Amino acid sequence: MRTLSDSAETVLAEIVGWRRYLHAHPELSYHESQTAAFVAGLLREWGLEVRTGVGGHGVVAKISGAAPGPTIALRADMDALPIQDEKSCEYASQVPGVMHACGHDAHTATLLGVAKLFSQNKDRLQGQIVFIFQPAEEMSPGGALGMIAEGALEGVDVVYGIHLWTPFETGTAYSKPGPFMAAADEFSIEVRGKGGHGGLPHNTIDSVYVASQLVINLQGIVSRNADPTEPCVVSVGSFHSGTSFNVIAETALLKGTVRTFNEVLRMQVKARLEELAEQTCRMHGAECKLDYKLGYPPVCNHQGETDRFYRAAAQVYGEQGALTSPLIMAGEDFAYYLEKVPGCFMFVGAGSKERGIIHPHHHPRFDIDESAMLHAAKLFIRMVEDYMNEAAGSR
Amino acid sequence: MRTLSDSAETVLAEIVGWRRYLHAHPELSYHESQTAAFVAGLLREWGLEVRTGVGGHGVVAKISGAAPGPTIALRADMDALPIQDEKSCEYASQVPGVMHACGHDAHTATLLGVAKLFSQNKDRLQGQIVFIFQPAEEMSPGGALGMIAEGALEGVDVVYGIHLWTPFETGTAYSKPGPFMAAADEFSIEVRGKGGHGGLPHNTIDSVYVASQLVINLQGIVSRNADPTEPCVVSVGSFHSGTSFNVIAETALLKGTVRTFNEVLRMQVKARLEELAEQTCRMHGAECKLDYKLGYPPVCNHQGETDRFYRAAAQVYGEQGALTSPLIMAGEDFAYYLEKVPGCFMFVGAGSKERGIIHPHHHPRFDIDESAMLHAAKLFIRMVEDYMNEAAGSR
Amino acid sequence: MRTLSDSAETVLAEIVGWRRYLHAHPELSYHESQTAAFVAGLLREWGLEVRTGVGGHGVVAKISGAAPGPTIALRADMDALPIQDEKSCEYASQVPGVMHACGHDAHTATLLGVAKLFSQNKDRLQGQIVFIFQPAEEMSPGGALGMIAEGALEGVDVVYGIHLWTPFETGTAYSKPGPFMAAADEFSIEVRGKGGHGGLPHNTIDSVYVASQLVINLQGIVSRNADPTEPCVVSVGSFHSGTSFNVIAETALLKGTVRTFNEVLRMQVKARLEELAEQTCRMHGAECKLDYKLGYPPVCNHQGETDRFYRAAAQVYGEQGALTSPLIMAGEDFAYYLEKVPGCFMFVGAGSKERGIIHPHHHPRFDIDESAMLHAAKLFIRMVEDYMNEAAGSR
Amino acid sequence: MRTLSDSAETVLAEIVGWRRYLHAHPELSYHESQTAAFVAGLLREWGLEVRTGVGGHGVVAKISGAAPGPTIALRADMDALPIQDEKSCEYASQVPGVMHACGHDAHTATLLGVAKLFSQNKDRLQGQIVFIFQPAEEMSPGGALGMIAEGALEGVDVVYGIHLWTPFETGTAYSKPGPFMAAADEFSIEVRGKGGHGGLPHNTIDSVYVASQLVINLQGIVSRNADPTEPCVVSVGSFHSGTSFNVIAETALLKGTVRTFNEVLRMQVKARLEELAEQTCRMHGAECKLDYKLGYPPVCNHQGETDRFYRAAAQVYGEQGALTSPLIMAGEDFAYYLEKVPGCFMFVGAGSKERGIIHPHHHPRFDIDESAMLHAAKLFIRMVEDYMNEAAGSR
Repeated sequence: MRTLSDSAETVLAEIVGWRRYLHAHPELSYHESQTAAFVAGLLREWGLEVRTGVGGHGVVAKISGAAPGPTIALRADMDALPIQDEKSCEYASQVPGVMHACGHDAHTATLLGVAKLFSQNKDRLQGQIVFIFQPAEEMSPGGALGMIAEGALEGVDVVYGIHLWTPFETGTAYSKPGPFMAAADEFSIEVRGKGGHGGLPHNTIDSVYVASQLVINLQGIVSRNADPTEPCVVSVGSFHSGTSFNVIAETALLKGTVRTFNEVLRMQVKARLEELAEQTCRMHGAECKLDYKLGYPPVCNHQGETDRFYRAAAQVYGEQGALTSPLIMAGEDFAYYLEKVPGCFMFVGAGSKERGIIHPHHHPRFDIDESAMLHAAKLFIRMVEDYMNEAAGSR
Repeated sequence: MRTLSDSAETVLAEIVGWRRYLHAHPELSYHESQTAAFVAGLLREWGLEVRTGVGGHGVVAKISGAAPGPTIALRADMDALPIQDEKSCEYASQVPGVMHACGHDAHTATLLGVAKLFSQNKDRLQGQIVFIFQPAEEMSPGGALGMIAEGALEGVDVVYGIHLWTPFETGTAYSKPGPFMAAADEFSIEVRGKGGHGGLPHNTIDSVYVASQLVINLQGIVSRNADPTEPCVVSVGSFHSGTSFNVIAETALLKGTVRTFNEVLRMQVKARLEELAEQTCRMHGAECKLDYKLGYPPVCNHQGETDRFYRAAAQVYGEQGALTSPLIMAGEDFAYYLEKVPGCFMFVGAGSKERGIIHPHHHPRFDIDESAMLHAAKLFIRMVEDYMNEAAGSR
Repeated sequence: MRTLSDSAETVLAEIVGWRRYLHAHPELSYHESQTAAFVAGLLREWGLEVRTGVGGHGVVAKISGAAPGPTIALRADMDALPIQDEKSCEYASQVPGVMHACGHDAHTATLLGVAKLFSQNKDRLQGQIVFIFQPAEEMSPGGALGMIAEGALEGVDVVYGIHLWTPFETGTAYSKPGPFMAAADEFSIEVRGKGGHGGLPHNTIDSVYVASQLVINLQGIVSRNADPTEPCVVSVGSFHSGTSFNVIAETALLKGTVRTFNEVLRMQVKARLEELAEQTCRMHGAECKLDYKLGYPPVCNHQGETDRFYRAAAQVYGEQGALTSPLIMAGEDFAYYLEKVPGCFMFVGAGSKERGIIHPHHHPRFDIDESAMLHAAKLFIRMVEDYMNEAAGSR
Repeated sequence: MRTLSDSAETVLAEIVGWRRYLHAHPELSYHESQTAAFVAGLLREWGLEVRTGVGGHGVVAKISGAAPGPTIALRADMDALPIQDEKSCEYASQVPGVMHACGHDAHTATLLGVAKLFSQNKDRLQGQIVFIFQPAEEMSPGGALGMIAEGALEGVDVVYGIHLWTPFETGTAYSKPGPFMAAADEFSIEVRGKGGHGGLPHNTIDSVYVASQLVINLQGIVSRNADPTEPCVVSVGSFHSGTSFNVIAETALLKGTVRTFNEVLRMQVKARLEELAEQTCRMHGAECKLDYKLGYPPVCNHQGETDRFYRAAAQVYGEQGALTSPLIMAGEDFAYYLEKVPGCFMFVGAGSKERGIIHPHHHPRFDIDESAMLHAAKLFIRMVEDYMNEAAGSR
């Protein structure tokens, strides 16, 4: 069968160019105005129906095929991170302290390439494609919710998203049916005791002691309270208390994260954490101020769409390149799209030990193997074609 | 019996003047050059034999009585603290960030008054008096050791020291035979684990967790390992670890203090703390870097000299003003003098709820009831007279 | 297609009879001589080739079909439990303190029924069936290893086992590809401190305190050390220490269990538990005596054979009765067979809320819905037929 | 000055005889009927005014001197312990499982000797002596309260008691002004969680875990909540929970003791222990059943009467034999007498390393150096004489 993915090479040079331009001009979450303008400009140039300012700096563009058929959404994210780029290549970030250290530049460029190709081949298209360029994936509450609220998924039958991923080698793609990426919540707990002389503990409420006990007590959530067959992590990332060796500290501040893959367990953990924090403090006469921020929900892929991924990826990468991912402990606001319509989120390998592309995401020397963008573009195209063919077949 | 203490009022105005001058011109530990010069100048003016630069900025002066007899040392300390004076009175500190917030100005002024009185009454003196003006009491290793090494206690039979103390009301004096003030040691423990992603604890060594466990384990020193009849405190004053809610911290830094009143127990606690720190870390694969700084030893008053205090103080304050102190959890390098010769360290009440003199030592609005200096001077004089009379009587 | 499973009803009355006989005459693990004789007698009666005394009281019987083909093993276990039967029905246990409280009587009876049916239909059989009647499933090290060592799997291509399971309703069957039932290990830890007067803890090594700390420390294995995507449980089931309120106990004895589904993690947990036990004790000067008994490995079903289960079960129970099981935290020595040859272990629902068959396994009033044996027999037959048909088809 | 203590040798042989008789015929607490009859018989023989059945098996006898004067009470205790005597000497216990393993036989015999001597020397006596032979010292609530309630201290000006003590060498006596022996309280805590399968902790409330956490939390009472200058011990002596390695235990039972020397702290510790127990349980959803039994209050000697002890003991043992005791962590219901009238409780050395009398109290081979009874008798006599002389002198 003829496939548009064979033509993807024709736009690779442009994809690389766009990606390098965006890499040099990163914008932080909720501030992607120039990126959005750049994206919208190109899409309009190619004749797409473009809507901007969707849920912030979001851009939604649509291609309607010659024949009727299903509506398929493809999503890329556009925001960068508050990290100083330490690379010295020519496309290194020109904005001090801001960097595309997670590859969203490449996601955007890839999806632009896919849009250009489809715009040149509308006549072959049996249905519609909606291109979602989303702002603010990196920072809760994220850009997805706003775009959905403002209609990005209207009429959409299915949604796909891709993350380029350097821990996986270029030439592979990974996904997983069901729970795939974690719900990543954030908490901070202020323990307010009563300060005093280090030699007179009985006149104080020792916040270092109380908060240490709380750290220990929190271990029990995973070891005793959570269903052992459900992945769950509770980690305290920072603990700050006191200023002097001989003064008992009045307050201690804990910050941490909770990772789950199941909404019921997630709420159980939240409730248990609140209970343990409050009661550990109360037991010692300390006050507890807990701030629990729900992050993105877990990314849960639909079985049928993940089956499609295995098929499509095998066509692009061969059987041995279409792989089942382990659970990923990071979060993604793509989860919100999957709560509304069926779909699949996919990881495309973008690392290369051979070529030294080994830095993990969020690293100051992060880069990707740019050829991975070609793979990603092909995967998007194959997913669209597979879905449309199936829809046509079932009519 | 006639006593020189009846004449103490005659020098009170001068004592107050000197104290206010010193209060306005505080000098930090190890930097008491102007204070030492001021003290030495006055002592020389009054005809005392003066030695300066003893163990740093220490000043030792001597009065030899008309008749032979014992040699009695009286000690004051001269250094100030790195605290910003928040008082607005005319004698408030003129040095930004430096303040006599512990009353050493008053100790120095009081001892000057005592020296002046005795210098005017040499003929009545059966023995010698050595006046020790010591630098650097506030900062370990302290000024006492150096002054002793350079002969401050040479030929000395007994030594007395006084601390003015605002938590006690003016008109009272307190001491206690045996252990009186704590050995105050300082420790810092760096726990070095292995940082990593908050959602992947199994790839890390979580220093917040290890250090929290250590804080809990340290409680066992006092609750299980120390003789319950021996006062002992182990407090962790600060705990700092991590920078982010979702990153497991590589290191945690604990700082704390140990208070004991007994050298054997002190060494047991030190050894146990080292053991617990090292082994708690090792158990989790973390590295432990422990720095344990021995502070001053416990102040242990001699029974006979404390009996003398009760007698002398009763003469100055009446029976109800000569009191037995509880154990004091703070430390004092006067302890070193008491390791060499018999003696007694005494607290003289210098607070007044009525007059609003209520701020604790080291407080930015700390002040003393200046009339307490008169009481302190009288107590010094009575102690000297009692000792000399006893010595004369036993001949 | 014609299937022997349609004839299963014809032997149901006999199956029930055998089951009730065995239920009334239970034998403990490693003492199944009468049961084995009973089984072997029937099998011989039906003309099977029977080997007894295989790995203890194991019985292996074989039916060779008319046509050549693969060799399929079906396994049942025969041992009972040291529990007093509290039922009052006529087939209640006649042996005081011994009871078929886990349904092995029914497993044996079901497999006898299957053997009888196949023995009557040899001519239709394209291959061989090996019937494994195993002793000692309930007690580590289990009977499977010995039977395998003595040739029970010789020439076997695939192996199937069924557990009747009252928590699932009759009319359903459950299995799961990959890890299915836990590796269930057992540990006991003796903490030997130093006893003494309750008022003089500093002269003792308090084993209650040390062991309590160890219980807390063990939580970290699951919460910090184990990969959160791998199910893992460490539970302390018993803690015994001391005889008096005012005497500090010399020793404490902990007993517990570890559950994992992955051999690598299992060995990591074992190593970590040993490390934590030893070092927590050493930290306090206590001695640690750890006994870690590896139980059965995890039961890991083969993907292809589990796919066969879904097919076969759907034929027996309908689509909605062929279900994917959650992970089962209990262990099974069927795991050893699966380490040698491909296969699948299956759960067949044997509970009935309607008829009050609700007691969990190992309960003194445990019973099964006897009609579940018919379902189990049919499932065995369908599995055999599916495999043989596939083998025949691929020739 | 002439003293009756010089005549004490004359009754020593009798004291030893009585002691050996009592040693061979021990009676448990609250069952001292024969002992009381024995004591009362002798006292009546010597002409004392005797009252029996005072607060149980208590005996109160009185000698009134020729001249008026103060009334002085001397107390001995009479009960034995539920311990099997392992000695083989001729006076070893004849009652299986009951033994004078704490020396109360010797206390009783000594006081009989003192009574006999004073009864022979009434004419020299300026005042009255009340002899209190008390039952049930070993078992809370103790015999003292009942005897006081029934008038044992009526008209009494001062009270003295002696404990023979084998950890101290014969020829020494120890006491201490103020707090001397501990308040010894007893607690038991039942933690009721929810049992279940060891592999399914999330369906349970793990009482081993909760109770272990409580043991750790209780350490904070001493390390953080109690004034470090006040001796305080909280020890958990026993911890019992669970019956199997793979079943999570429903309940855990802790038993322990609290030792303090100060009623205020004692009540603070009790309140804190209740708070920690209840809230640690509640935090995990477990129920807490706490039983806190107040034992005897602390023994607090009066300063003046302890000064008298130093004087009297120096006369009996020489200066170097009249010593200040460390705090004793054991309890004594003599405390109740001291709550009513001034007095002093004293320890008289009764051990001898040289002669192998080294077993601690409550040991199955416990014995005393019988010559210590002579010392104890002399000390009682000297205390009486000193008090009476002082009273006479002040008239």
